[in-house]
Amino acid sequence: MIAKLILDKKREGRALGSAEIREFIEGFTRGDIPDYQMSALAMAVCCRGMTERETADLTDAMMRSGACLDWKDLAVPTADKHSTGGVGDKLSLIIQPLAAACGVAVPSLTGRGLGITGGTADKLETIPGYNAGLSLEEFRKVVAEVGVSMTVQTAEICPADKKLYALRDVTGTVASIPLICGSILSKKWAEGAGALVFDVKFGSGAFMKTKEEAVELATAMVKASRAAGRKAAALVTDMNAPLGYAVGNANEVVEALDVLRRGAERADEDFVALSVELAALMVSLALEKPLDEARAICRERLADGSALAKFEAMVKAQGGDLAKFENRLAKPTFKFRIQAMRSGYVCAIDAEKVAKVALQLGAGRMTTADRIDPRAGVTLDVKIGDKVSVGSPLATLEKSGAPDGLERAAADLLAAFSFSQTDPGPRSLIAERMD
Amino acid sequence: MIAKLILDKKREGRALGSAEIREFIEGFTRGDIPDYQMSALAMAVCCRGMTERETADLTDAMMRSGACLDWKDLAVPTADKHSTGGVGDKLSLIIQPLAAACGVAVPSLTGRGLGITGGTADKLETIPGYNAGLSLEEFRKVVAEVGVSMTVQTAEICPADKKLYALRDVTGTVASIPLICGSILSKKWAEGAGALVFDVKFGSGAFMKTKEEAVELATAMVKASRAAGRKAAALVTDMNAPLGYAVGNANEVVEALDVLRRGAERADEDFVALSVELAALMVSLALEKPLDEARAICRERLADGSALAKFEAMVKAQGGDLAKFENRLAKPTFKFRIQAMRSGYVCAIDAEKVAKVALQLGAGRMTTADRIDPRAGVTLDVKIGDKVSVGSPLATLEKSGAPDGLERAAADLLAAFSFSQTDPGPRSLIAERMD
Repeated sequence: MIAKLILDKKREGRALGSAEIREFIEGFTRGDIPDYQMSALAMAVCCRGMTERETADLTDAMMRSGACLDWKDLAVPTADKHSTGGVGDKLSLIIQPLAAACGVAVPSLTGRGLGITGGTADKLETIPGYNAGLSLEEFRKVVAEVGVSMTVQTAEICPADKKLYALRDVTGTVASIPLICGSILSKKWAEGAGALVFDVKFGSGAFMKTKEEAVELATAMVKASRAAGRKAAALVTDMNAPLGYAVGNANEVVEALDVLRRGAERADEDFVALSVELAALMVSLALEKPLDEARAICRERLADGSALAKFEAMVKAQGGDLAKFENRLAKPTFKFRIQAMRSGYVCAIDAEKVAKVALQLGAGRMTTADRIDPRAGVTLDVKIGDKVSVGSPLATLEKSGAPDGLERAAADLLAAFSFSQTDPGPRSLIAERMD
Repeated sequence: MIAKLILDKKREGRALGSAEIREFIEGFTRGDIPDYQMSALAMAVCCRGMTERETADLTDAMMRSGACLDWKDLAVPTADKHSTGGVGDKLSLIIQPLAAACGVAVPSLTGRGLGITGGTADKLETIPGYNAGLSLEEFRKVVAEVGVSMTVQTAEICPADKKLYALRDVTGTVASIPLICGSILSKKWAEGAGALVFDVKFGSGAFMKTKEEAVELATAMVKASRAAGRKAAALVTDMNAPLGYAVGNANEVVEALDVLRRGAERADEDFVALSVELAALMVSLALEKPLDEARAICRERLADGSALAKFEAMVKAQGGDLAKFENRLAKPTFKFRIQAMRSGYVCAIDAEKVAKVALQLGAGRMTTADRIDPRAGVTLDVKIGDKVSVGSPLATLEKSGAPDGLERAAADLLAAFSFSQTDPGPRSLIAERMD
């Protein structure tokens, strides 16, 4: 009866009360409110929207459906970064250890890849022995001892989100800012970090196709988090081209290690700059330092190897063996290199197309049940603005198993590149800032 | 997969294709499309609406989910009247036989009462022996032999509507013109009458509270029916006060018989005028005669007893015994008469309040499982515009069983009356016409 009145209210476009939202989400999580009422509410929210206060209440109710961590017993403040998902997005592998190296504890519950979007856990699991399935107790221990841990969110965190997301996925109710906000934030709030930095991506390789949508989501997440008493900031970043050079799993770990080992030298500078900026936001929020100062500290910790040391310590604490990882990379795979067929400047590399090729090669999954090929992927030889001539290498495709499909994938990959006769000029990955 | 795309489309406010609507409704009826997808679509339709074409397609798909009758083998054209439900609404008991007496066959599938709204089948079943549960074959036979039959719609008619209505009832998705339209029209279209007249009611005793909503629904039903090649007309009528004097079941049959037996003499003239108008619309549409001419024929058939003869023949054909009905009325019940406590003109009689008293006495049901007391109800002694003085009788409450609750009900009933010192002047039940 109460569910019906709540549905009437939202259908009419009225704002729901905090208790109404809480009762609905609690009832749904317990199974007292059936799927058909929850899907009707989700559709009403898609059509009628939610106020900031309703969004914060929804997030809070979803967070409370499961375990909520807190880090009061740590001597240092906590922060985490969340990305809405991209192509070649190995930022977490650099940023989380970097922030930890700056004296911020980083409890980071992460996910697996699905569709064109890669997952941090999949990447880390290409390191032999790495356990991305820690219990919450083990997770607490690694964070306390190392200062950073990355593991897949357990079933104890936000069961309401898991149940609701599965339902939204089959009822056309994914595309709603308040619902997306509730889904992302409830997990991050449950994780308990005191400061949250959001990397909200837009473009062909992102869930949000336009900058406007990304700004809307970023604004909603920052506002709801602040309304709930958490420190928050966001960057809205361009995901039209892959981030960095590698798109896959093991190859992305290699690229992250390159950045951690050598700083900006030989790496994609835009990518390194974004890494530093996001880590600096975490440090600035958590340690309450001016952003300039936080940025300087981050650059230093990246250059002096302390970020690398944090990464290595985390891998070790979670059972991973980087030496074995490097040995495994020496094992043969099937490779195919594509070359430029014209001369000019690389002016676009379509992230979605590159991601689909990587998916085709086995680097990702179409359903959660699929298994990935850790060595499959695409490694670019060029970035936007590079000058090429006929025969210049553009990218290498790689896969394990059998060479089937490599040529077809190569043709598809070539179609991801656009060339121009004039230099496209400098570009910035950061489109908007909410700090 | 197709369901999800359809949900996306409607969520975005785009019009669905005919095939998409058909597939969704067929899938839902078969059980291939689960409740949670149907409820999400219902909510999206509530929020985004449907075009006339979509509404007609939805109705058609729902109609085709079950048996569809046709009356091509009859020598005369067919028509039916549908009311959106009211208080004291015994119009069908007069109109359907009256139209039949004018040479129109009337196949009328009807319903039972729920909440404050009475049902024609419940009223007819107060006649001992009356079978309101005919099979479709028996229904066809009575229509062919008598020219009119009234029976409860069978499970073979519109199973999609039954399933969808139950879901809408618990998901806050009842209040949608396209969905209401689909629900009402699919059953009427399946019934197969060539001409449909809608009595769309508004006011305290109706589902639609405002005239504007009623006009919107009436317009949608007439347009969708015409788009589907059916003759259709509608009246939008005032349901703020009860229709006629009786509100209940057996007492409504008594009032209908009074009108059929004596024409307008001693009866509520507004009520008789509305009966003639609705019957005339049926006759005018079905026989393709000018409305004036149809009106004159109806008045004549009501006055000369041929409408009464049709009613008696139908009751007999469906096993009812009017003599026994009249005998049973002589059995004692508990009665309570309320009187005016001031002098003046009756200026309002709140239909909803009267209906709630009748419900309290046992004349209706709160859930479909409840049983009704056929003799329970309220019979008014006055109508709007009547002059009363202190002690004038206003109404009689009646129930079987025990007298418990009569006084409380009497107090509630008194609160339904409003009085003024000046004559409220004439009123018209017909607010808008769509013919």
